[in-house]
Amino acid sequence: MSSPLIDFRHLRFVTDELWPLSTLLTYPRYAGHSHDTFAAILEQSHKLAMEKFAPHNRLSDVDEPHLVDGRVHIIPEVKVALDAYAEAGFMALLGDEEEGGLQLPYTLALLSDAMFLAANVSTTGYTLLARGVANLLQAHGTDEQKRRYRQPILEGRYFGTMCLSEPQAGSSLSDIGTRAYVQADGSYRLVGQKMWISGGDHELSENIVHLVLAKTPDAPPGVKGISLFIVPRFLVNDDGTLGARNDVQLAGVNHKLGQRGIVNTFLKFGEREQCVGFLVGTEHQGLAQMFHMMNEARIGVGMGAIMQGMAGYRYALQYAKERRQGRHPEQKDPTSKPVALIEHADVKRMLLQQKCYVEGAFALAIYGGTLIDRQAQHADAAERRLAALKLDLLTPVIKAWSGEWCTKANDLAIQVLGGYGYTREYPVEQFWRDNRLNPIHEGANGIQGIDLLGRKVLMDGGAALEAILADLLATAAEAKTQAGLAEYAQALMRTVQRLGETTKILAACLKEGRVRLGLANASHYLTAMGHTLIAWVWLKQAVIAAKALPQATDADRDFYEGKLFACRFFFRHELPSVEPLLTLLQALDDTTLAMRSEHF
Amino acid sequence: MSSPLIDFRHLRFVTDELWPLSTLLTYPRYAGHSHDTFAAILEQSHKLAMEKFAPHNRLSDVDEPHLVDGRVHIIPEVKVALDAYAEAGFMALLGDEEEGGLQLPYTLALLSDAMFLAANVSTTGYTLLARGVANLLQAHGTDEQKRRYRQPILEGRYFGTMCLSEPQAGSSLSDIGTRAYVQADGSYRLVGQKMWISGGDHELSENIVHLVLAKTPDAPPGVKGISLFIVPRFLVNDDGTLGARNDVQLAGVNHKLGQRGIVNTFLKFGEREQCVGFLVGTEHQGLAQMFHMMNEARIGVGMGAIMQGMAGYRYALQYAKERRQGRHPEQKDPTSKPVALIEHADVKRMLLQQKCYVEGAFALAIYGGTLIDRQAQHADAAERRLAALKLDLLTPVIKAWSGEWCTKANDLAIQVLGGYGYTREYPVEQFWRDNRLNPIHEGANGIQGIDLLGRKVLMDGGAALEAILADLLATAAEAKTQAGLAEYAQALMRTVQRLGETTKILAACLKEGRVRLGLANASHYLTAMGHTLIAWVWLKQAVIAAKALPQATDADRDFYEGKLFACRFFFRHELPSVEPLLTLLQALDDTTLAMRSEHF
Repeated sequence: MSSPLIDFRHLRFVTDELWPLSTLLTYPRYAGHSHDTFAAILEQSHKLAMEKFAPHNRLSDVDEPHLVDGRVHIIPEVKVALDAYAEAGFMALLGDEEEGGLQLPYTLALLSDAMFLAANVSTTGYTLLARGVANLLQAHGTDEQKRRYRQPILEGRYFGTMCLSEPQAGSSLSDIGTRAYVQADGSYRLVGQKMWISGGDHELSENIVHLVLAKTPDAPPGVKGISLFIVPRFLVNDDGTLGARNDVQLAGVNHKLGQRGIVNTFLKFGEREQCVGFLVGTEHQGLAQMFHMMNEARIGVGMGAIMQGMAGYRYALQYAKERRQGRHPEQKDPTSKPVALIEHADVKRMLLQQKCYVEGAFALAIYGGTLIDRQAQHADAAERRLAALKLDLLTPVIKAWSGEWCTKANDLAIQVLGGYGYTREYPVEQFWRDNRLNPIHEGANGIQGIDLLGRKVLMDGGAALEAILADLLATAAEAKTQAGLAEYAQALMRTVQRLGETTKILAACLKEGRVRLGLANASHYLTAMGHTLIAWVWLKQAVIAAKALPQATDADRDFYEGKLFACRFFFRHELPSVEPLLTLLQALDDTTLAMRSEHF
Repeated sequence: MSSPLIDFRHLRFVTDELWPLSTLLTYPRYAGHSHDTFAAILEQSHKLAMEKFAPHNRLSDVDEPHLVDGRVHIIPEVKVALDAYAEAGFMALLGDEEEGGLQLPYTLALLSDAMFLAANVSTTGYTLLARGVANLLQAHGTDEQKRRYRQPILEGRYFGTMCLSEPQAGSSLSDIGTRAYVQADGSYRLVGQKMWISGGDHELSENIVHLVLAKTPDAPPGVKGISLFIVPRFLVNDDGTLGARNDVQLAGVNHKLGQRGIVNTFLKFGEREQCVGFLVGTEHQGLAQMFHMMNEARIGVGMGAIMQGMAGYRYALQYAKERRQGRHPEQKDPTSKPVALIEHADVKRMLLQQKCYVEGAFALAIYGGTLIDRQAQHADAAERRLAALKLDLLTPVIKAWSGEWCTKANDLAIQVLGGYGYTREYPVEQFWRDNRLNPIHEGANGIQGIDLLGRKVLMDGGAALEAILADLLATAAEAKTQAGLAEYAQALMRTVQRLGETTKILAACLKEGRVRLGLANASHYLTAMGHTLIAWVWLKQAVIAAKALPQATDADRDFYEGKLFACRFFFRHELPSVEPLLTLLQALDDTTLAMRSEHF
């Protein structure tokens, strides 16, 4: 089965051979499932994504949401798709069976999301935001809040938003100005402005559940004073019917470069001093509650980036196989038939880069998904703890590395198509534009680097990094004995060693209190870590491919050969770029600190 | 004087200190000029670019050229700007005084272009295409052709196009299908289709002079059979008045990702078998004649890329200085005032990358401009020959490296602005979209790599490369004695040595007839060469800055310090990426050749 969204052979490889989903079935929560129910979910996801989401991906880019008489107008195809999604029960993929959910592992939800993200990242955004709100309420809401606000999301009747950023404080939540004043009845009145709110206003659902970060007047300064509130677009009566419109005003619609199909809004809360909000959990715990969901949200962003890259790669690959143009440099006879684009070494180089980035990042993100399930469901507390540690470290890499390099993959897809790729008659330029948001939102990439180096690799005395590097060395040890893979095993071991040394030097610098110096090149550190981890997943894939090859069928043989070539390409053309980055990091280069603003 | 288009202090640095334009005054053709007339041209260019070109840059992106009743509708601001440009005499910047031209050096035209390209690349495109046609007719046209088609271009009454690509043969001119049949009167009738023709149909000028590549029926196969024809939109009578409309049909308008303001067309020639064309030069010399202009066209594309990068950098820099957000990692007090974005190390890293790419590439492109003047005007034939050799080698690098890395600069500008950068309310996303064309047109970047490695570094027994590497070593030798620059001098010498070795290995491989293998990684070779050359111009700038610093004024001190920091950044953060590329090239890696189409 061939699809523009994903290579199903690659998907089977990841879910059966690389990270077998059968391990998820050992967790009691998922015991009711089977290999077949998993497969059915993915098939159904693909079908729905192709039938309802993909067809309007360009249309909602061209005819983007806009204001008509103060209301957000969205092309009808979006609601049709979302209704079909809800009808299939997909809003409750993760929900408990007793609340009507499918009770699937997070990994399955992530794989399902992948199809929709490749088909139409904008329309899929509405579903992911709503799910995020439902998940957060599951973790931190009261039973009453769950009944009132979560249950309708699972049923596909309510959608949701995350209201964090403000116009004056994009990445700096410490400086948010939205205030919440407690009332005699225990509810709050909110006053403030929120910026970049995706899905902030529309008529796609009966109601919108905004989750809003705000501060009470007596709150301590900084992020420690942030609380989290439910602010519904319409108040909800005790019997679940809708009450009055809440005091949340649509103050403007942002016009984005890409992901235009999902309305992005500027919202004003409490312009009439009547914005009713309900505290989630206790006061001043808002950021911790929000960050509880952050791993999932960031892996979701990574998967969005990966699937834009994947869709672009698959389009460019097909184009390069079909279009004939030019000849090999030694073919001097101009009357000979032009060769397919893919026959040109440089075109193959660009396709290999795309393959390495998107299939590598996909494998790493799915590994992240399995860690989410493991940390929640494994019987052994130590295993849960270890999974949580690894997940914490991998999350900024999956978010930021995928965002950067899978956008690069889209850039290469354009280049493969040449002039055609530069036109809006072909889809690759839109993938590129849509993808460009991913290095920015859910914590800009620069902040992910600081999170990784300043927090994640140091936590628990470096336990997470130690565990992950041990995994890398184990794969290298296994690869070393495989014919043809020793070169890469050696390279990975060397890189792991240097990465370890580098981290020690940086950690010492940070511990000495030279924090600004230690973190000055954190983005390079994230790139080095990302390339090393992607090298690891390629070597892991190569080991499986090398073992499977001798008894593989003809079609499978090509597939496994492809995996081996991609591994070779990544280790020869990509991984070596890490060396100079580690050298720079070890030298504690302070160029960006020493240069002052006025020197520019 | 501060400008969003360019830093005038940097401009003065390049034209007075780095590559003093005064040397151009020594050529007899430019003896009538002076430092002051040069300065006046640049001032006037900047003023006109700011007043007439910049204001509609966004407008012609949003309201792009489109068909109304079969005619191309273009917003009126475009014609107003172009009329003002012509009125200022700028269409004849390069023309002889006796034909009403300003008789300026090419370098001055390039600097003038730079202002307009930063202000509005699309509207400027019409002027550059017209100038290209005028230049080609100057070189290869008959006196009659010059009178009839060139003179009206210099007067700003006619515009022009270059018709090379066809729908089925984007980069492969060998396969063009347009045919030209000679008539009894010596004129030709053309039949064929041309794709991606910028400025192919409009009413901005009285007439459009298409330069069309086509083949006569008896032509030898391949590029050796290509001839060049003048095909005017309206036939021109002997007295210069316009005759009948020629048989050139507008078959469609392409909808591009960027550079939307310049209409891009699909043209059909001779649908009614009445398309009249006039041969330029002799039959089968078409490609050679076209390539005669290629260095200038490609340096022009490079400059377009650089100035999109420059405009984005300057916008991001100003934004980062003005916007306050976040705190340093060790500033734990959330009540302290947020710092300016530029104070964050990672933001400075992104600004430094932009500065290094755009100011470095600008310096290299202007050097290319001076070589064009030198090869044409120097009194000594050996000097002219040497300049031509160097220019030939540098051209693919200036085109392709600038296209890639200055588009990367625009990507970084978006990242500095964050969410705001992703909206169409801010200009940086448009610069990024506009710039993305540059790695594609005028010979896709992959082809530039093959041109560089397969032709330019080998020509004349490697004379061009030898001469350029000698220049690099001379700069390194000078820098070695400057306090603080020895580290970079060493690094440049080492890289030059390795680049030389690598080239020898690749040249031997090519000479042995292993052409496909030798050229397989040509794109990496171009990147390595580009980074090395940009390192060279940064070291050259640093030497000047280091010498000037002791007696500099306060404002100049900051400027020179900035040059030194940028040099340091490029040598520490960027140049080391060349090492693994050279290692790969020396190993003659064949991964992209060995992997077959069916493995993908």
